[in-house]
Amino acid sequence: MELISIIPDFQPRNDPYLLAKAEALKPALHYTEYPAPLSCRVNDEVLEMEALSGRPLRRGDRVVLDFGRHLTGRLTLSLSAAGSHQDAPAFIQLDFAEIADELAENPDEYNGWLSRSWIQQERLHLDSLPVELALPRRYAFRYVRLTVLDTSPKYQLVVSSAKCTAESAADWSILPVRHFRDDELQRIHDAGLLTLAECTQDVLEDGPKRDRRLWIGDLRLEALASYGSFRSLDVIRRCLYLFAGTRFPDGRMSANVFTEPAPAADDTYLMDYALLYPVALEEYLNETGDAETLADLLEPALEQADWVLAHRTDESGVLIPGAGSEAFIDWSEALDRTAALQGVLILSLDACAALCGRVGNAERKAGYEARAAALRAAALRSFWSEEAQCFLSGGQASVHTQVWLTLAGVMPEGKARSAFERTLGQPGMPRMATPYMHHYYVEALLKAGLKEEAEIHLRGYWGGMLDAGSDTFRECFDPADPHASPYGGMIVNSYCHAWSCTPAYLIDRYFA
Amino acid sequence: MELISIIPDFQPRNDPYLLAKAEALKPALHYTEYPAPLSCRVNDEVLEMEALSGRPLRRGDRVVLDFGRHLTGRLTLSLSAAGSHQDAPAFIQLDFAEIADELAENPDEYNGWLSRSWIQQERLHLDSLPVELALPRRYAFRYVRLTVLDTSPKYQLVVSSAKCTAESAADWSILPVRHFRDDELQRIHDAGLLTLAECTQDVLEDGPKRDRRLWIGDLRLEALASYGSFRSLDVIRRCLYLFAGTRFPDGRMSANVFTEPAPAADDTYLMDYALLYPVALEEYLNETGDAETLADLLEPALEQADWVLAHRTDESGVLIPGAGSEAFIDWSEALDRTAALQGVLILSLDACAALCGRVGNAERKAGYEARAAALRAAALRSFWSEEAQCFLSGGQASVHTQVWLTLAGVMPEGKARSAFERTLGQPGMPRMATPYMHHYYVEALLKAGLKEEAEIHLRGYWGGMLDAGSDTFRECFDPADPHASPYGGMIVNSYCHAWSCTPAYLIDRYFA
Repeated sequence: MELISIIPDFQPRNDPYLLAKAEALKPALHYTEYPAPLSCRVNDEVLEMEALSGRPLRRGDRVVLDFGRHLTGRLTLSLSAAGSHQDAPAFIQLDFAEIADELAENPDEYNGWLSRSWIQQERLHLDSLPVELALPRRYAFRYVRLTVLDTSPKYQLVVSSAKCTAESAADWSILPVRHFRDDELQRIHDAGLLTLAECTQDVLEDGPKRDRRLWIGDLRLEALASYGSFRSLDVIRRCLYLFAGTRFPDGRMSANVFTEPAPAADDTYLMDYALLYPVALEEYLNETGDAETLADLLEPALEQADWVLAHRTDESGVLIPGAGSEAFIDWSEALDRTAALQGVLILSLDACAALCGRVGNAERKAGYEARAAALRAAALRSFWSEEAQCFLSGGQASVHTQVWLTLAGVMPEGKARSAFERTLGQPGMPRMATPYMHHYYVEALLKAGLKEEAEIHLRGYWGGMLDAGSDTFRECFDPADPHASPYGGMIVNSYCHAWSCTPAYLIDRYFA
Repeated sequence: MELISIIPDFQPRNDPYLLAKAEALKPALHYTEYPAPLSCRVNDEVLEMEALSGRPLRRGDRVVLDFGRHLTGRLTLSLSAAGSHQDAPAFIQLDFAEIADELAENPDEYNGWLSRSWIQQERLHLDSLPVELALPRRYAFRYVRLTVLDTSPKYQLVVSSAKCTAESAADWSILPVRHFRDDELQRIHDAGLLTLAECTQDVLEDGPKRDRRLWIGDLRLEALASYGSFRSLDVIRRCLYLFAGTRFPDGRMSANVFTEPAPAADDTYLMDYALLYPVALEEYLNETGDAETLADLLEPALEQADWVLAHRTDESGVLIPGAGSEAFIDWSEALDRTAALQGVLILSLDACAALCGRVGNAERKAGYEARAAALRAAALRSFWSEEAQCFLSGGQASVHTQVWLTLAGVMPEGKARSAFERTLGQPGMPRMATPYMHHYYVEALLKAGLKEEAEIHLRGYWGGMLDAGSDTFRECFDPADPHASPYGGMIVNSYCHAWSCTPAYLIDRYFA
């Protein structure tokens, strides 16, 4: 799989009408002030926060504040000098961490392919103390470490207070308190909710630490979780307009959209993401019945499936070899994606049919339904292996393929349990790497009637993230190697990631 | 010599009347825009500046701009992205250097006693490009190096323009162009003028890179150079009021004064600096005849000499052993300062007598004159060695002692040349380390009638700094070891330092 898509001289095709609507839907953020925790750590000593102003800091001293929960927002520190008059700038370093283990990492040792600019570390010179230092950038963190790189031999730095002004478009005030069957479910549900809230910003971001932007795959899952909780309908609608408003020149939707300095499609196409757009739109309409949005976005949505049908399938409707390489499905180099992608295409056609039904276009509806039916039959023919008793993609067995063809309704009756058992965690087969994929696995178990297995998996996988030291759910998580990173360093991992928030939805809907 | 003075619980004694006058004298700064140079260096390649915007920069790329002269001011960079859309913050490092060799230093390897916060290096994250990055801090530099710590694999950083908005209270527009006898003198004179202008800010700073504040020793020399050039009389007057307006509780003047966030004496007393205050005030009045300032500052000035007479001399008027340890004189651990300090005290008493004469107080005038005469006799008795044919301080021969007792008029007729020859650069004797001390050496040569030697020394010493790669004159310079630092690292040296600007005065007055 190509990790990085670069299209030279790419120019997105923008629709001013749709983008103006997206702009008008920009949410007002809620700002919440979180005071410093009651205690902190200075070097190896635990100190009451109130005592910190009586503990002047010298070159090399470190203060760690644990705000007690994941925050997305801006830090303000009240700093002053002790000893003689400040006779040189104070030089400080701030490290922000979503989980405690991040603080042990050395940013200088990071040499992965993802930008080191995501590492949340700042070095600042303070020319004149006292100062109310309001950092201009937004960070995602629970922990912040202040290291005194230097004061001078004559004076010391004093931290007298700290606070975080957290930002989110999610409105906690409208949320009913939910009580679930046991503490574990409650804890997992609530962490999903927090993950969702932290990602609900100016758009539904994938992660507030990184990459801080809108992806279709994340949007669909965030929206599902939001419908049952914060109901950030304007933000969801805004996101739907953004994807339709800035696209590839041929009408395809980009996998993600930038909003700064102005909305712009990325030059990255992920076929499964584009195909999930009609699904996300249909789900939004299910919640809202919003006819204006339907009218504006119907054609852009249908185009996504139409393009794939026209350009990437053979006459039987099966994806041509190589089409899978244009899809994401999961972080996995080894995965053959074609069969899983076929499942996504079928679901997309179902959604297109439903959308056409909403506008009363029976003919187009029937067309999509017929294509979906034909594709289901073709998929069963093309990918089911009687010998292996599971679906194969390019000859490869994987749980991913079972999941998506189950979700698409192609799995033969009564075969799901064994197909999953034959592929989940089997040696030599691609492993599921992301909560995004694990979500669809749980959905597939539910669809196959394996509700107990679904709950066990949800508890084990998402609960495992919490046990590994998160307050929120991560972008990637392999229970066998909790700190693994697809980027070459855990310090750039995102520990609060939108596509991982779905226990808030799954528990609410299936395990309440 | 104690390098760092720390007085626990020090509280300066402030005089609101004097400080209000100082505040009212705050100069308006002149802002001058310096565009980027015509060419720059990208890694090892020299590029026309105009071509720089066509040279996208990736992780690790470095751009060096040479502005062609020393600047004190703020940098603005126009930065944008090339390639795909910016998908991660840009992370850059900026290193500012007064001389080219500074750029080869690694700040991480600096471990001297002076604060590493003086190192002019910033690391910045740029969340959204394009940006007009106007750095908020002031830097002292000729060279600036931008290092791309990271962009992302998808985009590159583009530097399209750069400029420096230089700041100074010195007004070049009133300066007549002066032509001197030869290029070398011209070059040295002009570098002195530039050094002075760079240090003429809100106050007469010692160095615009470091320590950016007002010291009496620097003030006196800056003022001398300013009278014959920029005539920044308000700034000089402001500085005189600042020293008088915030003092030690017992009335002594601090060696230096902070102005941010509010005027405050440092807890550092240097006896020679305090004794030079009446000298600086008398010189200011010589230039201006400013009766208001005389009325306000006479008593604070006289107090400086009176305190030393009352607390640090024996009945013959000779400084008690150990008094020298309270003086600066020069950077030198080995130097015995008592005899040199005696010279400073005598000059201070001369100035006090002149100040009393200005207000028509003949009695006090005569008193200071009598003390000065007695001290001259006592100094000759106490410090002159017939055997060594020079002055000794605590049995130690040094050029410093010869210089100050010559300036004080104690050197026996016809003995100066040999006394200097026996002590200047002799093995085992303290060497002159700073342009501050070299200035007084040149003045002493002139006072002894050794004008040719004075000119040769001036050309050799200050010309040597220019040959070693400066545009301005440095805080410290040993021709035998041009990069030596009293601080444990050349990267914290100040390459533009007020006390070194005096060739602008000396050449103008003596060698024109």
